[in-house]
Amino acid sequence: MSVVALLTDFGLHDHYVAAVKGVILQVNPKATLVDITHEIEPQQVTEAAFILRQAFPFFPEGTVFVAIVDPGVGTRRRILAACYNGCYVIAPDNGLLTFLQRDAELQDVRVVENRTLMASTLSTTFHGRDIMAPLAGHLSKGVPLERVGPVAERIEVFAVPRPVYGRDGSIDGLVLFVDHFGNLITNISELDVKAARAAGRRHEVLLGSRGVGPIRDTYADVPPGQVLALIGSTQMLEIAVNSGSAAALLNARRGDPVGVRV
Amino acid sequence: MSVVALLTDFGLHDHYVAAVKGVILQVNPKATLVDITHEIEPQQVTEAAFILRQAFPFFPEGTVFVAIVDPGVGTRRRILAACYNGCYVIAPDNGLLTFLQRDAELQDVRVVENRTLMASTLSTTFHGRDIMAPLAGHLSKGVPLERVGPVAERIEVFAVPRPVYGRDGSIDGLVLFVDHFGNLITNISELDVKAARAAGRRHEVLLGSRGVGPIRDTYADVPPGQVLALIGSTQMLEIAVNSGSAAALLNARRGDPVGVRV
Amino acid sequence: MSVVALLTDFGLHDHYVAAVKGVILQVNPKATLVDITHEIEPQQVTEAAFILRQAFPFFPEGTVFVAIVDPGVGTRRRILAACYNGCYVIAPDNGLLTFLQRDAELQDVRVVENRTLMASTLSTTFHGRDIMAPLAGHLSKGVPLERVGPVAERIEVFAVPRPVYGRDGSIDGLVLFVDHFGNLITNISELDVKAARAAGRRHEVLLGSRGVGPIRDTYADVPPGQVLALIGSTQMLEIAVNSGSAAALLNARRGDPVGVRV
Repeated sequence: MSVVALLTDFGLHDHYVAAVKGVILQVNPKATLVDITHEIEPQQVTEAAFILRQAFPFFPEGTVFVAIVDPGVGTRRRILAACYNGCYVIAPDNGLLTFLQRDAELQDVRVVENRTLMASTLSTTFHGRDIMAPLAGHLSKGVPLERVGPVAERIEVFAVPRPVYGRDGSIDGLVLFVDHFGNLITNISELDVKAARAAGRRHEVLLGSRGVGPIRDTYADVPPGQVLALIGSTQMLEIAVNSGSAAALLNARRGDPVGVRV
Repeated sequence: MSVVALLTDFGLHDHYVAAVKGVILQVNPKATLVDITHEIEPQQVTEAAFILRQAFPFFPEGTVFVAIVDPGVGTRRRILAACYNGCYVIAPDNGLLTFLQRDAELQDVRVVENRTLMASTLSTTFHGRDIMAPLAGHLSKGVPLERVGPVAERIEVFAVPRPVYGRDGSIDGLVLFVDHFGNLITNISELDVKAARAAGRRHEVLLGSRGVGPIRDTYADVPPGQVLALIGSTQMLEIAVNSGSAAALLNARRGDPVGVRV
Repeated sequence: MSVVALLTDFGLHDHYVAAVKGVILQVNPKATLVDITHEIEPQQVTEAAFILRQAFPFFPEGTVFVAIVDPGVGTRRRILAACYNGCYVIAPDNGLLTFLQRDAELQDVRVVENRTLMASTLSTTFHGRDIMAPLAGHLSKGVPLERVGPVAERIEVFAVPRPVYGRDGSIDGLVLFVDHFGNLITNISELDVKAARAAGRRHEVLLGSRGVGPIRDTYADVPPGQVLALIGSTQMLEIAVNSGSAAALLNARRGDPVGVRV
């Protein structure tokens, strides 16, 4: 129970990430610190929630995740400590848990209130360092979640756009996330397209009105530089370019419409 | 005594950071390595000194800091190993210790000379790898500082601009550091503005000639997109924008004048 | 035998690096994870191979290197696990081992086939996570290389441009790598220029047709802002600017011709 995984919008230039890590190590010198990312666009809770959910299933049981994207710091917004699938997640109650709420099993969730698990002095602008980091240290040392504070009766989530299923088997969704390679990850899942792919049924994927062919197995199923659709490593429908960037080639971005036609 | 915290201007693309880490782990396989930052602008000692000082107080006792921003590598500039507040700092003697000298308690400082604590072959261009990294490994294993070399009689520091206090209680300072969020961290401290804030006394903060209102408690004390002044997490006066970038909105940069008027 | 060093083209924004690290820690919770870089330009195997080879010699014996730059993922390209100089390297068989093949001692190399050392479900697009990461965990725990799969009879390498030696002692090479500081690292080694430098023999280094003077000892041998040639920390001839960027000042890039004239 000693991995602590960090996700923030702090960037890598300043001292903020280091301050959080130093505080965790003061509480638990044996913690194994792992960076998920610190390059969330400032205050972009949606993006952070997506990446947190994608990284989540690959960590060992007992991992403590700390997600610090916190535009409401210093206001009355609550900080939560939740347990999903045997792992802990500490985050402001601002929607960061949205995708975990949908896809993981919530076992317990507490409002962070126990003053003895925080820094002795609290700033009004950096609760990541003063509240979340020490708590991560304590949880990673085995302090039970019940000690953190009272049960949270509700968790803030934002609306996740769901695909729309047509009577003829067509599906209409959108680009949910554009990754570093320029792959366009959609909100259409492997399960959603199972029928369309079954028994080699003819189907076509569209980005806006542009056809990108049927769903392939891997990038190299088309020549380098060509567009394709496939089920990506997130188990979602993805539009990609073999050895290239779909975002750049197709001038695509988050929110763009994606369809499957049968 | 096994955390080693690294601050360099190496960037994250090349093999330089990895070489330093590999060498440290060769000497002390149990070291816990923490990155402060590797994105100091090449050769910007002032920026590095500021970030080092900001990260410093949050690390456990016995932490070994290695600060490698070293435009004078291969010249006769000395390498120092200092002890402040129970932690160790290894750095070229080029001003990197300026803010620690001002704000931390120096307990001992040595000129790095003991050849047996260095790599067997020394390059002329990468003392971070060949001298500082092995030394960090040794200090993190408990080698006493006395063994490093003779006491350094002086430490290079640069002049830190200090705020000017007017007879009427006004203060004139400047922007010392612009962080990733575009917050403007000034050289005016929480203590400096205590009088101005006492008993709700009317006061106003200025960036150049532009008023940004009185000192608030946290970002959300103004609507999103609006400018405010507050005491930031560094305990210094900061000019910020709620959910935005003061640097971008106000076109501000390091060195810009900041005043407090009462 | 528990350091695992990672080199990828994943960038630092997404969840991909974290997924790889999480999987390694699931298999070996005691692994010490070190990032070499995740900022290889997407699919640039040549650059990755160079950085891998440069970082390699500085790590402790038994280190497991995982190099994931894998444009051919999901095709029949093989994944290799090799042992060089007492360390392990896991990589797709696409040229990533080129420089290690040239400069390190190959002790064993296997085709990764043992299904029991992989994830229970394999994606077609992320073998770094599903095959290489679990294998890194197992090797770092001491699983012997023989168990990974059959001996690989050949290893894919690309042609590394070699310098050409003139009868008069002149050498013609090129820029192999441009680092973060804008230093131009060439394919001409310290050994290559030994004769030219011997006994203070007059010689000059050229970038294209521009003379940059003789080979100096360190950056500060010329005034700030001036160009120089020196043997860099990679033990290769480098063209640099004291406290500046040779790439920017000379508008130079990888592949540009470099000569030594005597």
